[in-house]
Amino acid sequence: MSDHLHHPARAELELAAVLHALSDPIRLRIVVGLARGDARSCRSFELPVTKSTCTHHFKVLRDAGVIHQRQEGTARLNTLRRDDLDARFPGLLDTILTAAG
Amino acid sequence: MSDHLHHPARAELELAAVLHALSDPIRLRIVVGLARGDARSCRSFELPVTKSTCTHHFKVLRDAGVIHQRQEGTARLNTLRRDDLDARFPGLLDTILTAAG
Repeated sequence: MSDHLHHPARAELELAAVLHALSDPIRLRIVVGLARGDARSCRSFELPVTKSTCTHHFKVLRDAGVIHQRQEGTARLNTLRRDDLDARFPGLLDTILTAAG
Repeated sequence: MSDHLHHPARAELELAAVLHALSDPIRLRIVVGLARGDARSCRSFELPVTKSTCTHHFKVLRDAGVIHQRQEGTARLNTLRRDDLDARFPGLLDTILTAAG
């Protein structure tokens, strides 16, 4: 169902791209929210941005390999790729979550 | 001598801005080089970019509070603001340096 959504493989994750994805206050807020564990839709975050901007932010996070997106009916559900991030960049996600929290 | 170079105070450092400053391969390379400790000029890095691009990258790092710049004669010497970064965002710089190294 999510074949059209590109996700980089773990080995393809690049530090600069991950840092870029996390270098925006809205995207940091999304990642902090997803770190609590549940798959969530864009809308559930009630962010102060338009729907298309929200979609853009999630795409930046997906392209960098920070989140996984899957389509379920009309909703697109997002989860944090914690295992992949921890494997490639040990400690990075946790220090950023702590700093952002 | 460096009064004209703006440096944000420690309390003003923002996570998103620091991550943005570090979200570029050239700037990561600069920071890895500065982490070895010595004050270094732009030119000493022998980066594959023009002088003006190099100057731009150092300005992005300075504006975000990642580096300190001081003018010495015709040279501008750069040092990493490790203490400030460690105080504001514990562990962040080290995890990024490890991931970049």
